[in-house]
Amino acid sequence: MVFTGFFKKLDADKQNRLDSVVIKTEKTLAPEALQDLCASVGWAKRDPELINRALANSLAVVSAWDGDLLVGFARATGDKVFNATIWDVAVRPSYQRLGLGKRIMREVIKQLDEFPISLITLYADPGRDGFYKRLGFNADPSGIRAMFRERS
Amino acid sequence: MVFTGFFKKLDADKQNRLDSVVIKTEKTLAPEALQDLCASVGWAKRDPELINRALANSLAVVSAWDGDLLVGFARATGDKVFNATIWDVAVRPSYQRLGLGKRIMREVIKQLDEFPISLITLYADPGRDGFYKRLGFNADPSGIRAMFRERS
Repeated sequence: MVFTGFFKKLDADKQNRLDSVVIKTEKTLAPEALQDLCASVGWAKRDPELINRALANSLAVVSAWDGDLLVGFARATGDKVFNATIWDVAVRPSYQRLGLGKRIMREVIKQLDEFPISLITLYADPGRDGFYKRLGFNADPSGIRAMFRERS
Repeated sequence: MVFTGFFKKLDADKQNRLDSVVIKTEKTLAPEALQDLCASVGWAKRDPELINRALANSLAVVSAWDGDLLVGFARATGDKVFNATIWDVAVRPSYQRLGLGKRIMREVIKQLDEFPISLITLYADPGRDGFYKRLGFNADPSGIRAMFRERS
């Protein structure tokens, strides 16, 4: 009974946090906020000037804010015509498992749907394909494989 | 012996064709030439106006020409900073198995290396991962999966 009460309180706290989250689609945001979010999910730190340029060159940028705190993010690149690729989908750990990732992804797809883009692609981390399948993505269609080449 | 002679002549013909192939990196090219190349490899026809816009919005466009005939193609999209994705790698069937695909891919990589891009990605068709591995690409790194969402 003690545990039940504890989890109920936790859920209520999380729900309150989610209610105050605002989704934005501006391409400019403080690089420090993005660096902080990336650090919260264990991603490598990126140069602020490069972040600014990458955001400016993205087709869609979606950010989720709780006041001044960046709590979620995703962006997409592409040719504005045939295809787009979604990158850097991140939700701050204390805001995870609340449906915020889905809300961010839906906004990215909505932004991309303003172009005649026929194909949206992404690279899913292990275990994340279920999340993306529920958003209409298919894994490895026709046996297609993700391949990466890192700068040497 | 007859067959050996036949294949030797074929190889010489192909080599002659390859010697006359010129690689170009201009982003503008006649959409009809690209439509014809795509048809030769069985891809769906795309609208000329959309082709023009997609090429203009690509980071790199590499085309291979034998005179006025477009015999190979590849392009890349991306944010000019962190990542790029290579699309539409095609070689006209009569020019395949001559190393032309490799030459085109190396030119795309060279074009992308003019940006500070740290990661180049692509979606490999089944059976094509060996080709891309020889160009420095790794398949499904860390269990990452390709996911596609087609416009409904």
